[in-house]
Amino acid sequence: MENIIIVGAGLVGSLLSVYLARAGFKVSVYDRNSDPRQVNLQSGRSINITLSERGFRALDAVGAGDTVRELCIPVCGRIMHARDGELTYQPYGNNKEAIYSIGRDDLSKALVNFAQKHENIEFYFNQKCIDIDLPTARLKLQDLQTGEITQVQADRIFAADGAYSPVRYKMQRLKRFNYSQEYLDRGYKEIIIPAGNEGNWALEKNAIHIWPRDSFMLIGFPNLDKSFTLSLHLPYEEEISHNSTASPDALQNLFETYFPDIWPLVYPNLGDYAKKPVESMITIKCFPWSYQDKVLLIGDSCHAVVPSYGQGANAGFENCQLLTQCIEKHLGDWQTAFKEYETLRKPEMDVLAHLCLEHFTVLRKMVGDRKFIERAKIERKLQEMNSEYASLYYNISFTSMSYSEALRSERIHQEIISEFAEKNLKSEVSV
Amino acid sequence: MENIIIVGAGLVGSLLSVYLARAGFKVSVYDRNSDPRQVNLQSGRSINITLSERGFRALDAVGAGDTVRELCIPVCGRIMHARDGELTYQPYGNNKEAIYSIGRDDLSKALVNFAQKHENIEFYFNQKCIDIDLPTARLKLQDLQTGEITQVQADRIFAADGAYSPVRYKMQRLKRFNYSQEYLDRGYKEIIIPAGNEGNWALEKNAIHIWPRDSFMLIGFPNLDKSFTLSLHLPYEEEISHNSTASPDALQNLFETYFPDIWPLVYPNLGDYAKKPVESMITIKCFPWSYQDKVLLIGDSCHAVVPSYGQGANAGFENCQLLTQCIEKHLGDWQTAFKEYETLRKPEMDVLAHLCLEHFTVLRKMVGDRKFIERAKIERKLQEMNSEYASLYYNISFTSMSYSEALRSERIHQEIISEFAEKNLKSEVSV
Repeated sequence: MENIIIVGAGLVGSLLSVYLARAGFKVSVYDRNSDPRQVNLQSGRSINITLSERGFRALDAVGAGDTVRELCIPVCGRIMHARDGELTYQPYGNNKEAIYSIGRDDLSKALVNFAQKHENIEFYFNQKCIDIDLPTARLKLQDLQTGEITQVQADRIFAADGAYSPVRYKMQRLKRFNYSQEYLDRGYKEIIIPAGNEGNWALEKNAIHIWPRDSFMLIGFPNLDKSFTLSLHLPYEEEISHNSTASPDALQNLFETYFPDIWPLVYPNLGDYAKKPVESMITIKCFPWSYQDKVLLIGDSCHAVVPSYGQGANAGFENCQLLTQCIEKHLGDWQTAFKEYETLRKPEMDVLAHLCLEHFTVLRKMVGDRKFIERAKIERKLQEMNSEYASLYYNISFTSMSYSEALRSERIHQEIISEFAEKNLKSEVSV
Repeated sequence: MENIIIVGAGLVGSLLSVYLARAGFKVSVYDRNSDPRQVNLQSGRSINITLSERGFRALDAVGAGDTVRELCIPVCGRIMHARDGELTYQPYGNNKEAIYSIGRDDLSKALVNFAQKHENIEFYFNQKCIDIDLPTARLKLQDLQTGEITQVQADRIFAADGAYSPVRYKMQRLKRFNYSQEYLDRGYKEIIIPAGNEGNWALEKNAIHIWPRDSFMLIGFPNLDKSFTLSLHLPYEEEISHNSTASPDALQNLFETYFPDIWPLVYPNLGDYAKKPVESMITIKCFPWSYQDKVLLIGDSCHAVVPSYGQGANAGFENCQLLTQCIEKHLGDWQTAFKEYETLRKPEMDVLAHLCLEHFTVLRKMVGDRKFIERAKIERKLQEMNSEYASLYYNISFTSMSYSEALRSERIHQEIISEFAEKNLKSEVSV
């Protein structure tokens, strides 16, 4: 039986272990962090995860979907909070289509637990990858509890070791390895709003709450424990920025001016807000993803995206499924399998990266932009009349249409909708 | 007196040492390679360097220009070789304006020699940078001859350690450090054609020779020792590629089909062509270039470009001058000096990277493209009538106009010239 090492027991690493074990391989998963089932650290690393159609499809294919569904809160649309407190509801679809909010840690634990049940999967925690020899698929690991350094070797290594992947750093030195890391010029800090007085969600729970203020925004996700996670997204260095709101007074002033309706809930829960680091957001692109038939990058290590579209985990899960299909199609010929997988998926992940960056602007600006809201209404109406006429967001979140196909379709629709919207606005103005 | 370390005694590192010593600092330069004055290695790393106006301006400002000029061969235009052997001469300017071809090693030696004369500059060779502590500007070095590891510390470190900069690898791990490395999908191999029978250049010496064949090309530069360096640029993997011409027969077939006029000179000088590695070409972009007031990237370490435009060294030299101006303007306030320098130069280097990539296509395709030749003629005529009407190539190579200004000016001119060219072609066709 062929031995496979996966570096990283995160979302993609643990799901991939299941896929590979089911395909008949012996899988060892090494992770630098502690077993997520034994600790309860708020990693603070991420906005809540949202799962959607393509993510669940990949989870269901190995029977992990229902376990995960139990930990999710369905979210059927966005509630936009204007400065004067007015709320506008924007449903994602015409038929209560939902995306699913889940805590990153909850999802991670669930997947490790699910994988652990398989007899051919072993997890090793507190094992930091400190070097990799690519041609021999040999890994040098340091036990972070004992300091001990060991070497392990496999027939193949899959690096699901995240945006700061040590394996990718090593591959970056290879000739003809293209690579880019690009940080967003904005960062975020989180504020947790606990369950309300009567033990219930303090805000409408089946929605994502957005306070879009053009160059900055606040966004809130419901959690299973009835709390809400708010993320305050600000530029690093503009007039209104993390720098300019570092003092408690300045922060209060920001909320009272721009987010007055939520300040009474935020104020008692600020905790050590000032001391929290600003979380940054990165887009990673590289190519190739594979080294011969020995090593393959997967997940954020080769295509990290900014979290605006809630698609990072979904794309990662989808890729576990697609990769396994390629491996099974070319059984034994790993290099062909890797090449086919990376050639198929690289353009898709590039489109996703683009959509995620663009969607940040959409989220920040949307409520203030009357044309955008008008357009969304027209899109829903068109889709009601003709189901093929789905919006970009719909195709991304509620179908498994490829990202590139969704973008192509959007570009065709856009022109038509622009005409509609123009007419609509004019006729309203003339009333 | 403030102590400065420069990592890298290459072209930019050695010129920078001169600038900084003249500005009153004590400079130590560490390089992993052997003293270029003691060895005579063909590094094989680079096409010949071409120096132009802006490079010489920066060399002359510290009195190094004339030493360098003695080692150069002036080149006043391109001689294009068609498949049937027809030669077309394209002068760079109307007044015998020249760029200057020089061997990379010759230039490197000359600059180290020149710098070495300054009492406040010390060079240390065979010293490989294996780590840097950014906040303290401390460098860990390994002596490649003895294996000994030492630490050195300075008030500030300038990393002129090239496209594969170890200092930049360290900075890459910092939050909000944007970085990209992009390889060209073509590589090259060099063939040296020695002096001809009568001890003279085998081809016209005051020109660059080009055999443009659309998806690939051959290009030749004159050397001071009366040899020519030919570089064969091919895709890695297309129908006509380095792979497909690996065998002697296939290579002969390529030359006899596409470069028949030069084959008699190439054939006796192929040497171990098949064993030579294909040289790759990389574009590096990153930002910021500085770490606090402690460390600054300079030269290829932060803005390597592909060598098509012959501007890499020129831009690097120009940057030594500009950086020193910023340092002297904000004397003692290094962080402000670094910020001003990087803010001024980053957009310029991005424009240069773009121009260099574009120019590769120009070089590969130019002779086959009748419109291009027509356009070049019109450009020279326009410039004859109005000296402000210089071509992009002219402004880049024969002025010190900023790269971005040259590009802006080009875009304005382009439309006008397109009209001219269209009319011209039509009138010819109608004859």
